[in-house]
Amino acid sequence: MKEISKLLDYRPDIKVVDATLRDGGLVNDFFFTDEFIKSLYNANLRAGVDYMEFGYKGDREMFDETKFGACKFCDDDFIRSIVGENNTDLKIAVMADVGRCNYKNDIHDRAESPVDLIRVATYLHQIPTAVDMIEDAKKKGYEVSCNIMAISTAQEADIKVALDILGKSPVDVIYIVDSFGSIYPEQMARIADLYCEYANKYNKKIGIHAHDNQKLAFANTIEAVGDGVDWLDATYLSMGRGAGNCAMELLLGFLKNPKYNVYPVFQFIEKHMNKLREEGVVWGYDLQYLMTGLLNQHPRTAIQFTKENRKDYAEFYKEIIAQE
Amino acid sequence: MKEISKLLDYRPDIKVVDATLRDGGLVNDFFFTDEFIKSLYNANLRAGVDYMEFGYKGDREMFDETKFGACKFCDDDFIRSIVGENNTDLKIAVMADVGRCNYKNDIHDRAESPVDLIRVATYLHQIPTAVDMIEDAKKKGYEVSCNIMAISTAQEADIKVALDILGKSPVDVIYIVDSFGSIYPEQMARIADLYCEYANKYNKKIGIHAHDNQKLAFANTIEAVGDGVDWLDATYLSMGRGAGNCAMELLLGFLKNPKYNVYPVFQFIEKHMNKLREEGVVWGYDLQYLMTGLLNQHPRTAIQFTKENRKDYAEFYKEIIAQE
Repeated sequence: MKEISKLLDYRPDIKVVDATLRDGGLVNDFFFTDEFIKSLYNANLRAGVDYMEFGYKGDREMFDETKFGACKFCDDDFIRSIVGENNTDLKIAVMADVGRCNYKNDIHDRAESPVDLIRVATYLHQIPTAVDMIEDAKKKGYEVSCNIMAISTAQEADIKVALDILGKSPVDVIYIVDSFGSIYPEQMARIADLYCEYANKYNKKIGIHAHDNQKLAFANTIEAVGDGVDWLDATYLSMGRGAGNCAMELLLGFLKNPKYNVYPVFQFIEKHMNKLREEGVVWGYDLQYLMTGLLNQHPRTAIQFTKENRKDYAEFYKEIIAQE
Repeated sequence: MKEISKLLDYRPDIKVVDATLRDGGLVNDFFFTDEFIKSLYNANLRAGVDYMEFGYKGDREMFDETKFGACKFCDDDFIRSIVGENNTDLKIAVMADVGRCNYKNDIHDRAESPVDLIRVATYLHQIPTAVDMIEDAKKKGYEVSCNIMAISTAQEADIKVALDILGKSPVDVIYIVDSFGSIYPEQMARIADLYCEYANKYNKKIGIHAHDNQKLAFANTIEAVGDGVDWLDATYLSMGRGAGNCAMELLLGFLKNPKYNVYPVFQFIEKHMNKLREEGVVWGYDLQYLMTGLLNQHPRTAIQFTKENRKDYAEFYKEIIAQE
């Protein structure tokens, strides 16, 4: 059982990462207005958020610029148009997917960039490329984190090998990622213990990125906090792929460090997030996401179900059970 | 840390209680159609749910019959019109609130009633009356449970006294109730330990009734399961007062006892629950409920905010902070 003191005190090491533009961008193809992005930046500043993720470093050879907003590519100039020189305590992050990012060309030296943190996202079988990306980003002067995705379908032995490889790499933070929203808090406790064991051995930090398929994104995040995980991803009103992520308003309400302030989050949601919903952008808990989470499947079938405006949940369940 | 075996095995002692008509009735004044209630009864039967709560035994001296549906009063004849003699494994429950139920007159002998379980709901200061109601219901032949409400604002010493009094009463099940949706799982673990201590001493069972103000109703429920709590309240699509309750679809997805089957829950939600939403019945997670949960306040101000169709969350937060 966790120490009771933890409920009233706080750990200064905790970092909150706003992933709204990045994970949220997956549900509107990153078509955020500049006004939205600037207001979000200001809300994060006032809320005491530590890092703001602007989106992906998407490879223009792979992705058609006309079909995505600027946060899909996160050019330095675009970010600078929002944050200027960013002389603030809020650091800037971007995500670089293994196999979907031309990192050697598109990630410039930190000295020339407003970006502080490169977040490498990888599947287990891509770890060697991930390490190359980590080393590249480190050489360019960045802080670097690494998300190992879809661990709920991986073997523990393989995860241990990956953690050992990443431990020996120059990465700063290794993320637990519940891509399918299928992990229960009591499993999260075990996973966090495993990751923290390697973090302690190699002097790394551990982060958590959760999904809300079973309405457990926040619960898993605070479970992980209690287990020693320091870097916490959240999005405003849970905006993110499928069922969405850990809600920023819940997380900042929970954290006790006086530097965090939930009120600007409420203001931003009132002014900007409900409008997105009214415009037809769809995310959040719904039965199709629960079903893929429950079955520990990638949410792609559920996302398709949502796109087609289907409501025949029972039929969908039969379809995905048949595919098992 | 919980035993890993618990994740794959199950406890036969667990009982699932469907509270959709009772807690859900609080958001539509219990105006469910007979077709809805019959379909829900059939869904519960097929899903392997153990108890179905039909509503309240509301005192007709206090509540105007024309302003509420039949589930506000739960006459034996009304329940019989749905379930007949109920020769099934699904037991029938009703709730009797201290001070809002004429229990001596309105609760008849179990031999004459289709009801199996009387659920007494009480605040701490009403415990002596609750015990009188428990004794009355026991004498009439019922199984009896007792919900101690609003414990998140109570002193632990007072809760211990209440648990001791209830332990000595003939009640069968004592419920942990997170009325304000303000309890975190790591607090729930401690509360469950305390309740289970008294349950072991007095040979009672413990139940959990959670609210979703911080999207923790399901997380708190499965935390409690892991801590030895056996009786679990849930509602279809979380329908319930304010932010709603632990979702039946999440709970049955989690439980491993093969007698439970989540598929009829999906079918019922598809056919009936979304229609309620389209008709304008409102419940579920929203910022106003998060705020009252965070501040450990009764949700009445948030319910009013919802009724007035207000969306000025930031202003509402200032209002309730000012009242602290």
